[in-house]
Amino acid sequence: MTRDEKFMRAAIAQARLSLKSGDVPVGCVIVKDGRIIARGHNEREKKKNALCHAEITAINRACKRLGGWRLIGAEMYVTLEPCPMCAGAVINSRIERLVYGASDEKGGAVENKATLFEREYNHKPEVVTGVLGKECAALLKQFFATLREKHRKNAEITE
Amino acid sequence: MTRDEKFMRAAIAQARLSLKSGDVPVGCVIVKDGRIIARGHNEREKKKNALCHAEITAINRACKRLGGWRLIGAEMYVTLEPCPMCAGAVINSRIERLVYGASDEKGGAVENKATLFEREYNHKPEVVTGVLGKECAALLKQFFATLREKHRKNAEITE
Repeated sequence: MTRDEKFMRAAIAQARLSLKSGDVPVGCVIVKDGRIIARGHNEREKKKNALCHAEITAINRACKRLGGWRLIGAEMYVTLEPCPMCAGAVINSRIERLVYGASDEKGGAVENKATLFEREYNHKPEVVTGVLGKECAALLKQFFATLREKHRKNAEITE
Repeated sequence: MTRDEKFMRAAIAQARLSLKSGDVPVGCVIVKDGRIIARGHNEREKKKNALCHAEITAINRACKRLGGWRLIGAEMYVTLEPCPMCAGAVINSRIERLVYGASDEKGGAVENKATLFEREYNHKPEVVTGVLGKECAALLKQFFATLREKHRKNAEITE
């Protein structure tokens, strides 16, 4: 297991926590000096809050832990390609390295659609993609398959 | 005074609060059914947190107030063109209408650089720009001029 895979496993463990509240399973850890300093998982439904993505929770905790808004030398590991809000938060917090698992063609803003880090904002992290990508994607696929099955059954009951 | 100007004045009043902590003056209000339901101002330095932009604080409060992550029918008034993080949060919270004052060539993500709302994410708000734009921009210009003067004086002292 590589160093990146080790930290991605910790992000996947976070993603599994989202399942408890019926949230889309996305998990994130922030690493500094080889140690995890903050964790987060998607809790949009649980917290009824559009901001409660895994990355935002982790950045919030990391800023509090380090006592500053610049997360210099920090690395983010997240199971899914960040959306515009979260990729923007990576820029704003000066995270130096972003590692993610699965790509998000519809909602991603790193390799997809907005390709934010190519837009010459005042910070650009190093990016590594596809780390344990199949595993991260499988977690999401299973979640949505279960959700569809649930909706199908509910539809049958109400028919 | 138009309806948009009235709410932008409330956003400008928020922006002035940022000055107390030496933060870049940006203010925001969120309106629903003709009433302000949440306010926010930039507190990045004060809170030592990269997420504490005016819009994020206001969206956080609006979600809590309405008890859901979808701010359906909500309008955001903000003194400065939102950055990628905040424009992304507008998408994620389904804000229906975004009104801002000054443009931000360097950091903006609406009419500048990323032009996020043209990237076909799953939500696109109506956008109105330039409402009390000169006043919003003047507040920022004065802040940065004062900051430069302070730095110049400090440099003289330490010479």
